[in-house]
Amino acid sequence: MDITKKRIGIIGGGQLGKMMILEAKRLGFYIVTLDPDTDCPSKSISDELIVAALDDVTAFRKLAGKVDVITYEWELINAPALKILEEDGHVIYPSARSLEIIQDKFLQNEALKAAGIPVPDFKKVHSIADLSPGMLKTTKGGYDGKGTALIKTEADIGVAYASLGAGQKPLMLEEFVDFALEISVIACRAINGAKVIYPIAENIHTNSILDTTIVPARISAETEEKALSIAEKVMNVFEGVGTFCVEMFVTKNNDIYVNEVAPRPHNSGHYTIEGCFANQFENHIRAITGLPFGSVGLKQPTVMVNLLGQSDGSAMLIGAEEAYLKDPNIRIHLYGKPQSKKARKMGHFTVIDKIIEGAIERAERAKEIIKVIGT
Amino acid sequence: MDITKKRIGIIGGGQLGKMMILEAKRLGFYIVTLDPDTDCPSKSISDELIVAALDDVTAFRKLAGKVDVITYEWELINAPALKILEEDGHVIYPSARSLEIIQDKFLQNEALKAAGIPVPDFKKVHSIADLSPGMLKTTKGGYDGKGTALIKTEADIGVAYASLGAGQKPLMLEEFVDFALEISVIACRAINGAKVIYPIAENIHTNSILDTTIVPARISAETEEKALSIAEKVMNVFEGVGTFCVEMFVTKNNDIYVNEVAPRPHNSGHYTIEGCFANQFENHIRAITGLPFGSVGLKQPTVMVNLLGQSDGSAMLIGAEEAYLKDPNIRIHLYGKPQSKKARKMGHFTVIDKIIEGAIERAERAKEIIKVIGT
Repeated sequence: MDITKKRIGIIGGGQLGKMMILEAKRLGFYIVTLDPDTDCPSKSISDELIVAALDDVTAFRKLAGKVDVITYEWELINAPALKILEEDGHVIYPSARSLEIIQDKFLQNEALKAAGIPVPDFKKVHSIADLSPGMLKTTKGGYDGKGTALIKTEADIGVAYASLGAGQKPLMLEEFVDFALEISVIACRAINGAKVIYPIAENIHTNSILDTTIVPARISAETEEKALSIAEKVMNVFEGVGTFCVEMFVTKNNDIYVNEVAPRPHNSGHYTIEGCFANQFENHIRAITGLPFGSVGLKQPTVMVNLLGQSDGSAMLIGAEEAYLKDPNIRIHLYGKPQSKKARKMGHFTVIDKIIEGAIERAERAKEIIKVIGT
Repeated sequence: MDITKKRIGIIGGGQLGKMMILEAKRLGFYIVTLDPDTDCPSKSISDELIVAALDDVTAFRKLAGKVDVITYEWELINAPALKILEEDGHVIYPSARSLEIIQDKFLQNEALKAAGIPVPDFKKVHSIADLSPGMLKTTKGGYDGKGTALIKTEADIGVAYASLGAGQKPLMLEEFVDFALEISVIACRAINGAKVIYPIAENIHTNSILDTTIVPARISAETEEKALSIAEKVMNVFEGVGTFCVEMFVTKNNDIYVNEVAPRPHNSGHYTIEGCFANQFENHIRAITGLPFGSVGLKQPTVMVNLLGQSDGSAMLIGAEEAYLKDPNIRIHLYGKPQSKKARKMGHFTVIDKIIEGAIERAERAKEIIKVIGT
């Protein structure tokens, strides 16, 4: 079969789906997106859009009937439904099994720990009596800080417990890691098991949402080596095909703990669009269609800054002209979401420079100018 | 007005239109394409497709009513119709006037010559009696070698004249330039007159169709400087907004002649997608929407090779897996044309390397493997 005749189904039509499609279209693939929102970012560049909820089994079946391979841009989808599709012979990458484990933070940590990968100490929470200072988390459904509550002292227990459903949802308690730095590693695996691992990204979060990614990360060669070897091990635990992101904490003593694994291209890998020859979306598409990978080396120091909605209302980008005029090394990506909401991911911009300090400085300047507001 | 709320109309939905849209979509622009082919490459990534001929005035008006700015990806369109739209207050970049001059090779050469830009000697042909050895050309409608006939000796005159309509179409005769090298320069101009000029591309044609582009071009610093200064002068002759391509001949004595100007992104500028931070399509979109330009410096030596249809039939890409497996520095672009025809531009691939000799070698290897055939 001509590889490019393959039809790709993508569950989720947000910015990650959109950026997958922008790469897939360079190779001429036919794309069917499934998303609940008729105005989702992927809409205008998908060949077909199935408007349905991300847990709609019937819609999943409809999608499967239209395409040769299914992937997803978001992990909070109906994993059991994917399993049924797999049993029916449909091809889904990453596999439903790896998704299922990753969706449950407790199972994820257990799998990582069993493979000898360092994770913060953790335990299941059966009742409020199990709580003590640490990071309280719902085992499922959390993202961007949602589904977590920090218990700094015993006095925080009641509020933290109540804020996460007071036992209505499965909870786990993790040791709080007083990290010096957050890093992430994007890696892809092919159907035949071949792997590529991208350069390490240093991530700065604000209010638990990614703000800035700096590449190369400002870590020692030793820490870099350790992080890459952990990422490699993680990829062997979750045997899925496609792009994964491994988020890690680095402590002051350069100990590394895996915080979370995502079975998809990741916000902290957006830098690869400008920073690498083959970006995380292109290699994801190559992986799931059976094509060998493109180069993942860093071409030049790169900084990525998220554009979060500053306020609610009809989305409006401001400052693009001024920022572009001041700096030709800036590139803005706008996801095409019609509505801005405070802290919603509306777009991002990337800056390059010959040296990382220069890229950081350019990014900081541009961040003061480029904004997405609601009007 | 929020810049990204602008709606862009593109006349022509071929690969150049498609690649414009892939960049425009990164900034979230709304795109309406006009093309006669319901299966054109731009189709699946345009917000709307108006199916109409490239000289259909009514359809042009319909397009103008839907968008804030009109551009085109192809110069063989109805220039007088664009003029009428402009008179009605619609914004068209590049302007109908610059298109009109460029469409007529005789007017184009006259304008260039008047500005002191070196062009091959040329004259209008009124009858067969005007012919002598040289390059015979129709003044309008030629591309990729179509509309040209070489008169090597007096004996070729009859055949050449007959092959171009025997005087039914306006003809011109150009001095034949025995060039050592063909080069091209992509340049963009903004609404406010600001300009950027990309690195010089060295082009190798086979049967008058672009085969390979090598950047940096293998020319002396002196020739480079001369070519850039000529491109700059050409941009001042055609005062349009957007991306232009200036094709030039370089003789053994390093004399330079302008061969042709295209008022649009150009096949010889595809290398900018991987080779430069802001590629020719992104800067075209920035130009016509009033955004300042992104960096055009070369990031690394880059070679682009066209994938021409090898035979007629349903298009099939072969060799992608093998080529990718052998070389991670290759990236294939497939335009999504359902039908392959012999010598039709079906896609291209780009190779990068640290040194240009390496990129050329990789490209030559890949060229043996990657093919588009008709089945």
